[in-house]
Amino acid sequence: MSGGAAASVYFWMPKPVKGYSADEMRTMLVDSETVKPGISKVDLDTPALCVDLNKFEQNIATMQVAIKKFGIATRPHAKTHKCAAIAKYQMSTGSIGICCAKLTEAEALAANGLDKILMTTSNVPKNKIQRAMQLRKKYPNFIQAVDYAPNARDLDAAAKDARVVADVVIDVAVGARSGIPPGPGVLELGQLIDTLPNLKLRGMLSYDGGVQHAKGFENRKARALKTIEANTDSFQMLKKAGLNTEIYSGGGTGTYNIYHVIPGFSDVQVGSYIFMDLQYSEIGGENGNEVYNDFAPSLTVLSTVVNNRFPGRLTTDAGSKALTLNTPSPKVIGEPDMTYSPGSDEFGGIRFNAPPSKEYQIGDRLELLISHCDPVVNLYDQIYGIRNDRVEKIWPIVARGKSQ
Amino acid sequence: MSGGAAASVYFWMPKPVKGYSADEMRTMLVDSETVKPGISKVDLDTPALCVDLNKFEQNIATMQVAIKKFGIATRPHAKTHKCAAIAKYQMSTGSIGICCAKLTEAEALAANGLDKILMTTSNVPKNKIQRAMQLRKKYPNFIQAVDYAPNARDLDAAAKDARVVADVVIDVAVGARSGIPPGPGVLELGQLIDTLPNLKLRGMLSYDGGVQHAKGFENRKARALKTIEANTDSFQMLKKAGLNTEIYSGGGTGTYNIYHVIPGFSDVQVGSYIFMDLQYSEIGGENGNEVYNDFAPSLTVLSTVVNNRFPGRLTTDAGSKALTLNTPSPKVIGEPDMTYSPGSDEFGGIRFNAPPSKEYQIGDRLELLISHCDPVVNLYDQIYGIRNDRVEKIWPIVARGKSQ
Repeated sequence: MSGGAAASVYFWMPKPVKGYSADEMRTMLVDSETVKPGISKVDLDTPALCVDLNKFEQNIATMQVAIKKFGIATRPHAKTHKCAAIAKYQMSTGSIGICCAKLTEAEALAANGLDKILMTTSNVPKNKIQRAMQLRKKYPNFIQAVDYAPNARDLDAAAKDARVVADVVIDVAVGARSGIPPGPGVLELGQLIDTLPNLKLRGMLSYDGGVQHAKGFENRKARALKTIEANTDSFQMLKKAGLNTEIYSGGGTGTYNIYHVIPGFSDVQVGSYIFMDLQYSEIGGENGNEVYNDFAPSLTVLSTVVNNRFPGRLTTDAGSKALTLNTPSPKVIGEPDMTYSPGSDEFGGIRFNAPPSKEYQIGDRLELLISHCDPVVNLYDQIYGIRNDRVEKIWPIVARGKSQ
Repeated sequence: MSGGAAASVYFWMPKPVKGYSADEMRTMLVDSETVKPGISKVDLDTPALCVDLNKFEQNIATMQVAIKKFGIATRPHAKTHKCAAIAKYQMSTGSIGICCAKLTEAEALAANGLDKILMTTSNVPKNKIQRAMQLRKKYPNFIQAVDYAPNARDLDAAAKDARVVADVVIDVAVGARSGIPPGPGVLELGQLIDTLPNLKLRGMLSYDGGVQHAKGFENRKARALKTIEANTDSFQMLKKAGLNTEIYSGGGTGTYNIYHVIPGFSDVQVGSYIFMDLQYSEIGGENGNEVYNDFAPSLTVLSTVVNNRFPGRLTTDAGSKALTLNTPSPKVIGEPDMTYSPGSDEFGGIRFNAPPSKEYQIGDRLELLISHCDPVVNLYDQIYGIRNDRVEKIWPIVARGKSQ
């Protein structure tokens, strides 16, 4: 089979595989992010982090349509992708801003062209608060979470030093991790912020990390609406006191279609919907499916078979340094009877539960669905954007490793 | 307490904590790696990866003394630290070379001044073999593992193209992960390599990853010597056939004091001994101790308390993106009754099993012993060298993320 029109239809597997390194791939850029046409994904040196662009774009379109119907907005969480190009694409498709979990993440994304950043956690110590206020000075749409009276006072002082009035939201806890517990303390903190001359209260946020992966939509919905009740009561207290409550942000990919029934809820901090992963696939959807297929798995890691001579198993080049130890284990696309273990730092181990679809040779490529997208992305310096199995984009993961 | 001579003795905890960012710290360098004196480790922005230099240097000295007594050498594995400065220190203190697990790791370390590199795994596909031979051309002491006849032939062709005669060692498997199984196939591969004009056989290597963490020294010794037997038989077959067997490399931190009894064994590929970690602490030593204290834990992650208002627990800024999900969980130094969970990507969760030594405030620093050093180091761009609780060095982790 050969020639023109058919070329984009059949699966093109060049032999021998090239194995272009990250450096070699960057020499093939025709602009800041676009690769010259024709490079197959199987020609990438591995392990390689890839996103299927058709699925990725569809996931974002699906989310935006749903959210518009619900009358709320998306403020996607960049902790998932740590990637300026992806954040810009989210902004260009209707998101009202992005969220960042860590200050260094926000600094890296701001330095790469993102300005509407909401920091979802408070900063300690003072040096970090001062750095956040430097960001605020440069980017007037920067919003900072605060969860503690002394922290609000430090923030006010830092805002004064930076000669800005800083927009803040109160981080109200769901569960016992971060934020201020819901209740009268939230109102007190809101009133304190209202009296501090260099802070401007914009509302609150509440992220329920625990409920995102609750299995079964009805179960998840019931739990999510129950655990957020006290937070919504706090929100109403702020509102009744006449404080600014224009922002009530929260939720994630598992609850994007649940919180809009809450009066005043403004936007969802969805992250994983762009990539999906095996952890989210397991939670079930509103359509009753056991597999959560509102969004398509777009994120994969390409790996190479490096050993095939032990009966019933293969060794690959993608271990825990390429895949993390999150559970469930990665899955080999097209091989449901393979069990993949990334338990070795450098190598992946595959066992056959039944004969595989073909006899695998050393050098063969495998494509893996990954367990949990956020920490896997954090292992790579760049992500390859793939369309119809060819490399289209190289996107630097500019906030990779920015955990401070 | 104040003044001159005492200053280096007492524990210096400045208030308020500065929280110098990675960028700010680099502005304090007085040469390529040395920080101006006086910065306390508690002033680092967190999470921060730190190595206690006194313990680190002592660990290396201890290893070199032991190995010299055994009549063998160290060829430390750089997959542990991925750091050129550390590899250079190992070379300057008597190691005969370093090992690398991945080609990109070797390329990064070579580009940063390391030349005596042994690549412990074969490279696939051909592009990678060619890149390895470019390294060999530039660095004549580069040695490449090979485990498969077609791979040896590809390597010979790539060496010819690069106009070099490439030094190779046969990777002989222990267990069923990487390498050629021990037995007649090893001799056949050795004889093939001997006939290939552009390859020079230097010997073999065998790494038994499975036995390194076997608990109890006598148990570990018995298992290690048993599982290596077939490999030593293969080594003897190579030797009797008149092939070059000057290298018989293998072992790790758990077996550094075991393999020297094997005739012909030349060097240990020790890695973790420089840092130690909780996984190795559990394996027990030759002295009969349940805690393996041949080497001192020198590697820590500094973290900050970001929430203290939920009874019986604390939240920190170091989650799985800063600590991995390896087990056992990290331990808070000085707080044996705290249980640390890095199960959240961005946050660590601490539970008190008994009242802590003090009432922890938001902003307080904690220092964590980590579970498994290699993948934790791989999360950071730089490691701070600490002496007497002050920052002395900043070492870039030049091969961080180089998993290809």
